[in-house]
Amino acid sequence: MPRLDDDRLFPLESRSRDLARALYSEVRDLPIISPHGHTDPRWYAENKAFADPAQLFVTPDHYVFRMMFSQGVSLDSLGVPRADGTAAETDGRKIWRVFAENYHLLRATPSRMWIDHAFQDVFGIEEDLGPDTADAIYDHIDDCLAREEFRPRALFERFNIEAISTTESALDPLPWHRMMRDSGWTGKVVTAYRPDAVVDPDFEGFAANVAQLGEITGEDTATWAGYLAAHRNRREYFKTFGATSSDHGHPTARTENLSDAETEALFGKVMAGSASADERDAFRGQMLTEMAKMSRDDGLVLQIHPGAFRNHSPTMMAQYGRDKGFDIPSPTEFVRNLRPLLDAAGTDPNLTIIVFMLDETTLSRELAPLAGVYPALKLGPPWWFFDSPEGMMRFRQLTTETAGFYNTVGFNDDTRAFCSIPARHDVARRVDCSYLANLVATGRLAERDAFEVAHDLAYRLAKQAYRL
Amino acid sequence: MPRLDDDRLFPLESRSRDLARALYSEVRDLPIISPHGHTDPRWYAENKAFADPAQLFVTPDHYVFRMMFSQGVSLDSLGVPRADGTAAETDGRKIWRVFAENYHLLRATPSRMWIDHAFQDVFGIEEDLGPDTADAIYDHIDDCLAREEFRPRALFERFNIEAISTTESALDPLPWHRMMRDSGWTGKVVTAYRPDAVVDPDFEGFAANVAQLGEITGEDTATWAGYLAAHRNRREYFKTFGATSSDHGHPTARTENLSDAETEALFGKVMAGSASADERDAFRGQMLTEMAKMSRDDGLVLQIHPGAFRNHSPTMMAQYGRDKGFDIPSPTEFVRNLRPLLDAAGTDPNLTIIVFMLDETTLSRELAPLAGVYPALKLGPPWWFFDSPEGMMRFRQLTTETAGFYNTVGFNDDTRAFCSIPARHDVARRVDCSYLANLVATGRLAERDAFEVAHDLAYRLAKQAYRL
Amino acid sequence: MPRLDDDRLFPLESRSRDLARALYSEVRDLPIISPHGHTDPRWYAENKAFADPAQLFVTPDHYVFRMMFSQGVSLDSLGVPRADGTAAETDGRKIWRVFAENYHLLRATPSRMWIDHAFQDVFGIEEDLGPDTADAIYDHIDDCLAREEFRPRALFERFNIEAISTTESALDPLPWHRMMRDSGWTGKVVTAYRPDAVVDPDFEGFAANVAQLGEITGEDTATWAGYLAAHRNRREYFKTFGATSSDHGHPTARTENLSDAETEALFGKVMAGSASADERDAFRGQMLTEMAKMSRDDGLVLQIHPGAFRNHSPTMMAQYGRDKGFDIPSPTEFVRNLRPLLDAAGTDPNLTIIVFMLDETTLSRELAPLAGVYPALKLGPPWWFFDSPEGMMRFRQLTTETAGFYNTVGFNDDTRAFCSIPARHDVARRVDCSYLANLVATGRLAERDAFEVAHDLAYRLAKQAYRL
Repeated sequence: MPRLDDDRLFPLESRSRDLARALYSEVRDLPIISPHGHTDPRWYAENKAFADPAQLFVTPDHYVFRMMFSQGVSLDSLGVPRADGTAAETDGRKIWRVFAENYHLLRATPSRMWIDHAFQDVFGIEEDLGPDTADAIYDHIDDCLAREEFRPRALFERFNIEAISTTESALDPLPWHRMMRDSGWTGKVVTAYRPDAVVDPDFEGFAANVAQLGEITGEDTATWAGYLAAHRNRREYFKTFGATSSDHGHPTARTENLSDAETEALFGKVMAGSASADERDAFRGQMLTEMAKMSRDDGLVLQIHPGAFRNHSPTMMAQYGRDKGFDIPSPTEFVRNLRPLLDAAGTDPNLTIIVFMLDETTLSRELAPLAGVYPALKLGPPWWFFDSPEGMMRFRQLTTETAGFYNTVGFNDDTRAFCSIPARHDVARRVDCSYLANLVATGRLAERDAFEVAHDLAYRLAKQAYRL
Repeated sequence: MPRLDDDRLFPLESRSRDLARALYSEVRDLPIISPHGHTDPRWYAENKAFADPAQLFVTPDHYVFRMMFSQGVSLDSLGVPRADGTAAETDGRKIWRVFAENYHLLRATPSRMWIDHAFQDVFGIEEDLGPDTADAIYDHIDDCLAREEFRPRALFERFNIEAISTTESALDPLPWHRMMRDSGWTGKVVTAYRPDAVVDPDFEGFAANVAQLGEITGEDTATWAGYLAAHRNRREYFKTFGATSSDHGHPTARTENLSDAETEALFGKVMAGSASADERDAFRGQMLTEMAKMSRDDGLVLQIHPGAFRNHSPTMMAQYGRDKGFDIPSPTEFVRNLRPLLDAAGTDPNLTIIVFMLDETTLSRELAPLAGVYPALKLGPPWWFFDSPEGMMRFRQLTTETAGFYNTVGFNDDTRAFCSIPARHDVARRVDCSYLANLVATGRLAERDAFEVAHDLAYRLAKQAYRL
Repeated sequence: MPRLDDDRLFPLESRSRDLARALYSEVRDLPIISPHGHTDPRWYAENKAFADPAQLFVTPDHYVFRMMFSQGVSLDSLGVPRADGTAAETDGRKIWRVFAENYHLLRATPSRMWIDHAFQDVFGIEEDLGPDTADAIYDHIDDCLAREEFRPRALFERFNIEAISTTESALDPLPWHRMMRDSGWTGKVVTAYRPDAVVDPDFEGFAANVAQLGEITGEDTATWAGYLAAHRNRREYFKTFGATSSDHGHPTARTENLSDAETEALFGKVMAGSASADERDAFRGQMLTEMAKMSRDDGLVLQIHPGAFRNHSPTMMAQYGRDKGFDIPSPTEFVRNLRPLLDAAGTDPNLTIIVFMLDETTLSRELAPLAGVYPALKLGPPWWFFDSPEGMMRFRQLTTETAGFYNTVGFNDDTRAFCSIPARHDVARRVDCSYLANLVATGRLAERDAFEVAHDLAYRLAKQAYRL
């Protein structure tokens, strides 16, 4: 018995189910556009075999290990490294057994769906994972990983990825992208400009980072003019490695549109380390507007990811460091916060600002109305932790009536879990086709229009919005 | 092939679909009660032909042109007037072509559903609007508009409108309502008392407006007692033109219940122009309570519309003026904000206060519990921009279990788009019947009760709540 | 014709309906675990007949009388006691007639479903309640209540209650639990430790209450050390009457994790009556953390119920007193508010903290992510007034993808309406089975796993989380 239902996530009523199937059959094999994610460019550059199954599926995936941790499984037993980089458990097979024993905790979660999908489609596994099958599945995956056709570039091609974006710090010299380019490989892997380290005064080592940006670019980043020039310079450098976007993770959606004199003064205080918490926040907000201005010149798409309370547990942060599943969404306000940016640049139809949200209450109330009128503003797909079927469906139900389809930008996988990429895009395509099928079946959308929209959501909108 | 599905918006499963059809067949032809809207009384008074198709469907409808603007279509090309009243494009046919070319942007939106409905039902059009049909459809509508049976009063009767309310400023002399009355036409068009201009200290020309109110009413509005008397006087005047309600659009849901002495002092500061932002806000809040007190005497229904951030873009406001699609809902708090008003008047079963909301998170959390206990408080239908099928359904799902059906007031169309009125009421009736059918099919409501409730929601509750 | 549909609340599509039926048939007869509620221990202790039908169904049920009040029915006519304890109407039959006349106001509400369920299953009534059947139904119930098999213990056994918890003040000497124990009856009725009166500085008579706690426990509660010791002592006393949990109703979710010195100083101010509003709130927040520390020692489960604005109407509070249907949910923030408590104790897998919510916007945004990572934290079932089918379904849809099933704790009925207990658990079981059936039918959960999860949600999780 195959594990995956061919009709999974489709509506149950037969007419809408048939419609969903028909729509999906037209988009299931479209190439993947992955315009925002966190896969490691080194994989594609070196094209070495992936490490063992635990390193592929468990240890780096905070959705998996946080859920097990929440039920009393220790991170040490799952091989999650401590803050100092050492891991208590390094035996892949032992980690895998703990994972298998607790696999039921993932029931009905997106992680479970990705993993089952990857097991079946990528590795051809038919059994369910559990204590009794753990070793056999481990051995099978381990064997696969040693083979040429499971190397990163082979999977990239097998996954039918037309273009993928990684994300790198503004200070990153981009060696792996250079190595890829020099290798002559034709896979399209682009970088994205992530300047948090040199834009956020609260980032560790901010002053040193800004100084380093000056050195890299040959600009005097001690001055406001030089600092801006350094950003422009660095964005151009990223563009030579294919970058079409910048990305900004801020605690809130605050933006500012200060005068040049005010901004310069604020920059001075920030650099002198004398800015208050509010001034540091204002600086982050002003830099979004500065980036939008640069985008109007150089064409990079501006992505804003606000609203995560990161590393919520000080205890766990001290023991295990960042990104261990303790990023918690907070209420986020967009109407007043985005206004300075939107007033400065929001009516420019040649600019693209993509806003992501973790607080879904803002969708129908704030974001769909804003995206439904400001030409520059587009809504990123729902970004609340999982790429969840329920969340995706709510996203469409809460935004389409006010913002339509064309102020959204298709799907982002936002992942570092390489094998989950086809599964995530497949889920998004299924959910969107189900949504469209339901609209057709209830007389809200013409059938022929639904086919066009399905193609737009699965492929064209992402490609167009991100200029890929 | 007809464009509209006869079963649109009904549940898909056959038993609930059959129930929805049966319920709908009992209410589809009920007269329309439109107790809150913004059609122009001049139409009914003069009964002249409507202008060209672009002036009927495109130029005045901010739901239509904002969506096109959001995708880079200029407002000028759509004939939207600039702030000075002039329009860049005045050729109806050219505007119509731009509209037709971009009609796909409205896919799956309520606007698309209204327009298709009006095309088919009002104008008998069978083709889809698009670049190739734009001229033919334009000509057809234009021809129709020249005919007697497409004049406002003829459509009013054809639409089976039993009663409709317009909305006029407290300072409006109501000439069109007078002209209607004098004409002997029997169509029931009533006014509603909208005193924002003389109640909101931040309204343009507030002081002069209050002075003018004094002149009109013969009261000394420089004193608190005279100001209140002027309101009472003016409300009576509006009542002679059928008014059964007052309407109040405030940025927040704040109310106050100050002592007479405090209120009088606050009024003094407001009139002197020395009130702080918070005091001006407090004055607005106190005036809601004052209006509620007057309502207890004169029987007008008090309507509160809080939570819109109006004219969000200063740039667009400067170029195109108010009401260009830039009204954005904000988070709105009701529990603490309505408390002073509810404590002053909320337990009076003879008073009716109807609250509208743009922030649907308040429905299950705040508004349904409040309406489910305070006798005076009723929930207006969901007011978030469109009269959207998804929004209407969520409204029922989020309020019924806590507030029941009888603390809601049926449907409002809230529109200035005359031809959309039957379409909007039809959508509301279909959604409510679908909701009821689902309750019956899942054993939560007796079938015979559902027929009674369907009638209540489509007709009786609006008529009763608004005393029409 | 039976009133209740055997398939009520199941999905309508036939495959998922069949699945829901199959799942439900496995859990419908499982014993009831009612780990949190407000039934009166005196009932079980004395085992006397219940009073008349109005006293059983109308007068004590604020869901019922608040809805009638919201439509203009006076509380006096429903026999609701005034603040002084006297009731204007004491004739059960007259009250019952008013109730029957207005029974339609409860259409499609959970209250209606409980009452119909109890009428049919507990009392064998076949007719619908209405003005014409009111007297006959009254007489029938009244007759039943006089019979031995309708006494509290008989119903307890007939309802198949395996364990139920009542809730008592920390100052309560627990006479009824003692009487039960002494009687030799084997029904499992345990108490829960509710210390609001001695923990909340704003509670009426707080200082006297703390002094009384000292007397009861023989500790010097004027000192911080003695105050803590008194709590420990009292918790042990409650444990001897079966308590496995403490319960805390706070206006917000605020917690604190102050140093010992800070806490002692704060306690001093609170006891001296010189603490500011913010300090009193901080003290409540600190006491949650203190209770969590005690729980780590003595094993009591910590329950937090934040976010209700209680007794919203001062007018009604003055006339009728507390708990008259005027408790209104407020927006509640958990991410920052729970952080001190979670940092102090949240990673301990041996501690159980159950958080309830009235603000469902926090489910996907804040609570599921928190419960999905902190080992101590579990989500209580949805607590917004009614145990509503729509609310229960939204709870699963909003939490499962992020928190899974195993960070939730099954169902609580939270009621003082004894006859509604089987109906409420039945509704929860039906909704959960419907949710699971839909997951299976859409390929998101294996069928055999669904049977296990259905059992977990209906029985095992509550028993395990509450250690019953």
